Amino acid sequence: MIITIQCSDRVGLVAKISGVMERHEINIISMREHVDTEENIFFARIQIQQTANKSAIAKALKEVLPEGAAISVNPITEKKVVIFVSKEYHALSELLIRNHFNTLLAKVECVIGNHANLEEFCTRLGIPFYHVSHEGKSKQDFEKQVLEIVNQYKPHYLVLAKFMRILSPSFISKFPYRIINIHHSFLPAFIGANPYLRAYERGVKIIGATAHFVTNDLDEGPIIEQQIIRINHTYSANDMRKAGKEIEKATLAKALQLVLENKVFVYKNKTVVF
Amino acid sequence: MIITIQCSDRVGLVAKISGVMERHEINIISMREHVDTEENIFFARIQIQQTANKSAIAKALKEVLPEGAAISVNPITEKKVVIFVSKEYHALSELLIRNHFNTLLAKVECVIGNHANLEEFCTRLGIPFYHVSHEGKSKQDFEKQVLEIVNQYKPHYLVLAKFMRILSPSFISKFPYRIINIHHSFLPAFIGANPYLRAYERGVKIIGATAHFVTNDLDEGPIIEQQIIRINHTYSANDMRKAGKEIEKATLAKALQLVLENKVFVYKNKTVVF
Amino acid sequence: MIITIQCSDRVGLVAKISGVMERHEINIISMREHVDTEENIFFARIQIQQTANKSAIAKALKEVLPEGAAISVNPITEKKVVIFVSKEYHALSELLIRNHFNTLLAKVECVIGNHANLEEFCTRLGIPFYHVSHEGKSKQDFEKQVLEIVNQYKPHYLVLAKFMRILSPSFISKFPYRIINIHHSFLPAFIGANPYLRAYERGVKIIGATAHFVTNDLDEGPIIEQQIIRINHTYSANDMRKAGKEIEKATLAKALQLVLENKVFVYKNKTVVF
Amino acid sequence: MIITIQCSDRVGLVAKISGVMERHEINIISMREHVDTEENIFFARIQIQQTANKSAIAKALKEVLPEGAAISVNPITEKKVVIFVSKEYHALSELLIRNHFNTLLAKVECVIGNHANLEEFCTRLGIPFYHVSHEGKSKQDFEKQVLEIVNQYKPHYLVLAKFMRILSPSFISKFPYRIINIHHSFLPAFIGANPYLRAYERGVKIIGATAHFVTNDLDEGPIIEQQIIRINHTYSANDMRKAGKEIEKATLAKALQLVLENKVFVYKNKTVVF
Repeated sequence: MIITIQCSDRVGLVAKISGVMERHEINIISMREHVDTEENIFFARIQIQQTANKSAIAKALKEVLPEGAAISVNPITEKKVVIFVSKEYHALSELLIRNHFNTLLAKVECVIGNHANLEEFCTRLGIPFYHVSHEGKSKQDFEKQVLEIVNQYKPHYLVLAKFMRILSPSFISKFPYRIINIHHSFLPAFIGANPYLRAYERGVKIIGATAHFVTNDLDEGPIIEQQIIRINHTYSANDMRKAGKEIEKATLAKALQLVLENKVFVYKNKTVVF
Repeated sequence: MIITIQCSDRVGLVAKISGVMERHEINIISMREHVDTEENIFFARIQIQQTANKSAIAKALKEVLPEGAAISVNPITEKKVVIFVSKEYHALSELLIRNHFNTLLAKVECVIGNHANLEEFCTRLGIPFYHVSHEGKSKQDFEKQVLEIVNQYKPHYLVLAKFMRILSPSFISKFPYRIINIHHSFLPAFIGANPYLRAYERGVKIIGATAHFVTNDLDEGPIIEQQIIRINHTYSANDMRKAGKEIEKATLAKALQLVLENKVFVYKNKTVVF
Repeated sequence: MIITIQCSDRVGLVAKISGVMERHEINIISMREHVDTEENIFFARIQIQQTANKSAIAKALKEVLPEGAAISVNPITEKKVVIFVSKEYHALSELLIRNHFNTLLAKVECVIGNHANLEEFCTRLGIPFYHVSHEGKSKQDFEKQVLEIVNQYKPHYLVLAKFMRILSPSFISKFPYRIINIHHSFLPAFIGANPYLRAYERGVKIIGATAHFVTNDLDEGPIIEQQIIRINHTYSANDMRKAGKEIEKATLAKALQLVLENKVFVYKNKTVVF
Repeated sequence: MIITIQCSDRVGLVAKISGVMERHEINIISMREHVDTEENIFFARIQIQQTANKSAIAKALKEVLPEGAAISVNPITEKKVVIFVSKEYHALSELLIRNHFNTLLAKVECVIGNHANLEEFCTRLGIPFYHVSHEGKSKQDFEKQVLEIVNQYKPHYLVLAKFMRILSPSFISKFPYRIINIHHSFLPAFIGANPYLRAYERGVKIIGATAHFVTNDLDEGPIIEQQIIRINHTYSANDMRKAGKEIEKATLAKALQLVLENKVFVYKNKTVVF
C-alpha cells in the first residue's frame, strides 16, 4: 500500500504523520519526504506493509494535516493505460513487451495510431489497435474519434509513444497530468519539430530524451525523466535519430514506471520524483 | 546541525524521533532514513535549523530509541584532515585547492609523503609537508614516524590520496573507519597492484575508481563512492592511467565530502550514503 | 560493402591499401584503422560505396599485404542468428523486436530454450522455438540435441540471451568467436554465478553488464561492450537484478549490432571495436 | 609530430596522403580521417614518429591535395595560453594545477581578472595576475587595457575560465577560433545569463556544461566538449551551481587539451574532434 501526501509545510508534519502510522499499528517499509523550502510545500510517499483500512488512515491523516492536503492511500494496483503511436515502433514495443510479461505495473488496454503500420505487431501481442487517420479531417474531428475510443477504456494514463501529432488544449484538459509524452531531445533544448536535425546542425556532443507530462505549452510540461547519449562528428542527423531511439524508449518506460509506482508529484510545472 | 542515528529497527521509530523534534520545537530542514530490512538496522540523518541544545536532544533521543543506538548531534564544523601521498599530485591537489578556497568542509592540517616531490606544491599553498621515506626502514618504523606526526594534529580523518604503501593492521586499527583511500579500479575488479595494466590486458571497455574506508583486507573495505570512464582499444595502459586520474580525484573528493557532511554510515562492510 | 583487414603491421600499409582502392576506382565512404604497437598488429575496416568485384579486390589486397593477412570483402548482408535462452525474457525480446521490425541486421532463425516458458512469446512473433530441457540428461546429450537443431539453420552467430547453462569446451570449439554471451556483471568483477547477490554483499555503488565472446574460460572471453548503472544502498539484490536487466538487454543488443556490422576484431583475448 | 589536413573531399585522398608518407619514409603512428559527406569536406590528423622535415612534407602534401587545402605540420610543442577569470576559482585552478605540474600541454603566461580575489592564488603558483576592473569604464576601454596585456604575451589561445563579461565582436575578431569559453549549461539549452536558476525553474533532471569557441553570437560558437551531471528535486539552484562546477572545470580542461593536441577542427560552426 502506498500513501502519498502533498500539502503546505509546517513544523511537525513528519511527527504527526508517523504518529498516525503508530496509532494504527502500521509498519512503514519505506518513507521519503521532501520540502520545497522556497514554495513551502511538503511531499511524502510512504510504503506500508499492511492491507490497512484505507479510509480510516486517510481520515486520520486528514485530521492532522493542513487544510487542503492532497492525500492518497492506495494499493499499487495495476492501472489502465492507452498508448498513442504514429509510425515508429521502438517506444511502443518497449511498453508492450513489459505489458506482455507483466512487468509494466499497468495493463495496456489498447493502442491508437494515426498510421496503420503498427497494427500487425499489436495484434500479434493480442492488444487492440485502432487506426484513426488524421488525414482529411480537422483536429477536432480527429480528437473526437480518438476520445470515443479512449472513453471506452477509462484509462488512468495516456502514453504518447512517439505520437507525432500535437493535441489540442481542449483534449489535454480532459487528462490533467495524465498524459505522458516522450520528446526526442534534451529539453529545453530543441523544443518542437526535428530536434535531431537541429542537434546535428548545432554540432552538439550529447543528445537526449525527455519524458514529461503534457500541458498546453508544447514540450513545456513537467519533466519526469531525462537520459542522454554521447555522440560525435561521425553521426549524421539520421545516425542521431537511430541512436536516440535507445534512450527514447528507456526514458519513456522509466518515466511511466515511476508514475505508476506513485513516485511522481507535480507542482509549479516541476516534479518531485522519489 | 546534523543528527545521525543508527540502531536496530522497530515499528514507530520515525514517530518517536520526530516526536522528540516536535517537543523540542525543532524545525527539520531535511530528513533521510533507511531500513536494511534484512539486517533489521535503522539509519537516519536529520538536518535541523536551530543551534539547539545538543546534549538535551541526544538525551531525549536516547530515551526513545532502542538500547545501543548510535546517536550523534553535531554542528557541521570544520573537521581536521591529514593527507598521505606518494608521488602523484592529482588527488592531493584536488583536495588542497578546495582547502585553499574553503570549500572542503575540512581543514587540511598537513601532508605526509613517502616521497619528497610534492613538498614544493604544499609549501606554496602553505600546508606543512612531512617527508617520511619508507626506504631503508621496517614498516613498523615507518609507521611509527608517521604516527608521531599524525598525533600532533589529532585529525578526524586520514585521506590516502594515491598513497602507494600498504598500512599495517596495527596502524589501521587506530583509525577505525577514519581512513579513506582511493583505489584506481572499479572494485572488486582489479584488487591490488597495477589495476590499469590488468584492465588493459583484460580488454575492458570501462575503467573505474573506488573510494573506500580502509580495513585490514586490502581494497576490501566499505565502498563510499565509485565513478567510471569509458575507454576503448586505442587506450594503452598508460592512457588508461592518465584518463583514470580524472575520476580518481573526483571520486576521492566526492567521498570525503560525503563523509564530512555526516552522510555516510558504515555497517556490515557496506555503507549507507544519504 | 565492408572490407576488413587484420595483419602484422609494417610501414606503408595504409598507402598500399588506399592505392588498391584508387586503382580500382573505389570510393571510400569511411575508413578506420588501428595499430596495436605492442603486438605489432594492424586492423582496418573500410566501407566502400560500390558493389565492387569482391574477389578482384580481395586478390589485389592480398598481393600488397603481409603474408597471413586476414582479408574479408563482403556486403553487409543479413546474417543468420540462433538465440539460446533460459527463463528470462528481456534480452530475448530486445533482439526479437528488432528482428521483427528488420533493424537487427540479422535474421533470427530460431530460439532454443532449456525452459519452455518463452515459447508462447516466440510463437506470437513467428519464431520457431525449441524446448530442449537439460534435466535428466548429461551435458553431452543436452548439447547433442541442441547441436542438431543449430545445424539445421547454419547460423553465423549463436547469441546467449541470459542462457544460464555452461557450454562445454567441445561445443564452444565448434563456434570460435561466434558465440556471444551477456554476463550480468561488470567483468572481471563477479565472474560466475549470482553476480547481483555478490554485488549487493560487497556494497558496490555501480553495477554493470558485459557482452563477450564465449571461450573455454567462463566469463573470460574477449569483451565486446560494457555498460553500467548507478545504484545505492536502497537496492536489494533483487532490485539490482531488476535494474540490471535494462543494461543487460541494451549491452547485448549493442554488441550483436557491432559484430554484425563487422566492426569487431578479436586478438589476444581482446577486441578492437571500430 | 602532428599533421592536420582540412580540404574539399575527392576520391583517393587517403591514398595520396599515405603515398606522400611512404615516399618520405615516414612511419604513421596513428591516423584519423573524417569526411563530411554533406559538405564534401575531408579532415585528417596524422601522428608521425620522426622529427621529419616539416616544410618538405607540407610541400609534398600541398602538391597532391586539392587547392585551398589547410595543411599544418607541427610538433606538439607547448603553446602559450592566457586565462581570463572573474571571481570563481574552480576552472582556473584546474588549469593552473595542470600547468604547475606540466600536464597542460601549454604554458599559462598570465591570468587576467576583472575582479582581484584570485590574485593571491595565482601569485602562490607564480603566475602573473593582472586585475583589470570593468567598473567605471566603457567596454572599449576595458578591452583595450586587456588587449595590451594579452599582446605582451602573444598567446596561442585565450581561455575564459568562468569569465563573466561579454567580449565585443571587435575583440573576438582578433582571435578567430582561438578563444575557448566554458558555459555553465548544456547548450543550446539556457543560453545567456543564470542558466542554473533557469534549469532549476524548468525542473530539468540533468544539468550540463559546454566548452566552445567564442564567436560573435553569445554561446553560439562551435561546441568542443559537453558533459552532464544528474540532479533531482532536492537540488536548489545553488546546489546545481555547486554540483555544476565539477563538470565545468572538467569540460573546460578536456576541451583545452583536445585543442592543444590539434585534435579539433572547425567548420560550419561545428567541430570535428578526433
